[in-house]
Amino acid sequence: MARSSLYQQVAAEVRRAIYTGDLAPGDQIPTETDLMEMHGVSRNTVRLALGELENEGLILRMRRRGTFVRERRPLLMRPQDEFLPLDQSEPRFDSFVHAVTSEGRRADQNIEVSIVKPPEDVSIRLALGDDSLAVVRRRLRFVDGQPYNTYDSYFPLDLVGDSEIARPGDIKRGANRVLAELGHHQVRAVDDISARMPTPDEALQLQLEPGTPVVVYVRVGYDSEDTPVRVAVSVLPADKHLIRYELERH
Amino acid sequence: MARSSLYQQVAAEVRRAIYTGDLAPGDQIPTETDLMEMHGVSRNTVRLALGELENEGLILRMRRRGTFVRERRPLLMRPQDEFLPLDQSEPRFDSFVHAVTSEGRRADQNIEVSIVKPPEDVSIRLALGDDSLAVVRRRLRFVDGQPYNTYDSYFPLDLVGDSEIARPGDIKRGANRVLAELGHHQVRAVDDISARMPTPDEALQLQLEPGTPVVVYVRVGYDSEDTPVRVAVSVLPADKHLIRYELERH
Repeated sequence: MARSSLYQQVAAEVRRAIYTGDLAPGDQIPTETDLMEMHGVSRNTVRLALGELENEGLILRMRRRGTFVRERRPLLMRPQDEFLPLDQSEPRFDSFVHAVTSEGRRADQNIEVSIVKPPEDVSIRLALGDDSLAVVRRRLRFVDGQPYNTYDSYFPLDLVGDSEIARPGDIKRGANRVLAELGHHQVRAVDDISARMPTPDEALQLQLEPGTPVVVYVRVGYDSEDTPVRVAVSVLPADKHLIRYELERH
Repeated sequence: MARSSLYQQVAAEVRRAIYTGDLAPGDQIPTETDLMEMHGVSRNTVRLALGELENEGLILRMRRRGTFVRERRPLLMRPQDEFLPLDQSEPRFDSFVHAVTSEGRRADQNIEVSIVKPPEDVSIRLALGDDSLAVVRRRLRFVDGQPYNTYDSYFPLDLVGDSEIARPGDIKRGANRVLAELGHHQVRAVDDISARMPTPDEALQLQLEPGTPVVVYVRVGYDSEDTPVRVAVSVLPADKHLIRYELERH
């Protein structure tokens, strides 16, 4: 490895303290002045070092309060919950609400319903023609009042245009139940999981700190004729979510 | 939103061109000089703008060749493949090799075998005592000669110390098969998926560009007594991997 610059050396020492646990999650990092004295370097060098650690998602700079080791307390998401046999899934109409409330935290969501020409990747997954429209139910979800993730469900307009799904507001029994009543019970799903850096809009909406990637989770639901009837796109800030699947050999 | 600075305005225009597809994956971005003229700004402003886009993972700066829109051609990983009924999984001893070769690309891996005191989170998942050791088989995997991901499998030393698993080199029929022969056939697995920015070591080993998060995929395998017998940790650069699960309602 090439010889590292002064600021990289300072960053490496703080990083090591975090990885070894000498600095624990939530601990305050020494002040800029302290770091200048400890390492015999300039303020600018300290700032470059802290900037690097911030971009790695290791520390959090809080205005007027100081700099802290980031806490990781991810929400456990279980995508299979929504896919339990129908009788078992009855009481769990929303797995996000279930996951949050079972941790003793408070869940809220804003829902916006609109009719749109969906993004190309959603159109393809729904096997829609070029000019076909979709109903989208966009949710911004909150935990204890903080924006936490987004969850947008797309449905072919032809399928759901006359149903509650196309009307504003929450559907207490869940949109999946309405789809089933319309004759499109989902029997199969394909889940795609990837990650990337957030778009500026996402960073703003979800109040993301620098150095926070997002996990993008896309579910396509198919009915018994193998027609795609729903595409759900979730954007999950990576520092706050853990996705878990359980597999059994049958 | 606060009024954005000059470099943010330049970044926003290039970003928009990428999101709308005016600049497609692999396309060259206008040179610094072109961008200075197009926007009537200084070289420093252009560099700040490009730095921001690079940190978002949208562009790739290649020495002496110019700056390009990043290509996304992710490898499709199917964690369930390894968990097919035993008779079906027979020919597919390594799902990474299968995924790569089925795309017509070349897969290679380096394997290092050692006996270690595992990291705390692995110890906990393997339900090991404080001083218990594990055999770790560390793989660095390549696609078409480029480092692609890492895959480290931990096994309790007590369980596998006398077997091939503890000896150097590849195991043609797969370590899972050896575990089954030792009486620890895995019948259940728990998969945890999260994402974060890479550590400097990971960035170096996997030759990551700035603005590239990693997906961390951890599988714990349990035998029929519900004893954890294997923990596999994969570090997957987010720009190169897509994880897919398929669910069916039984």
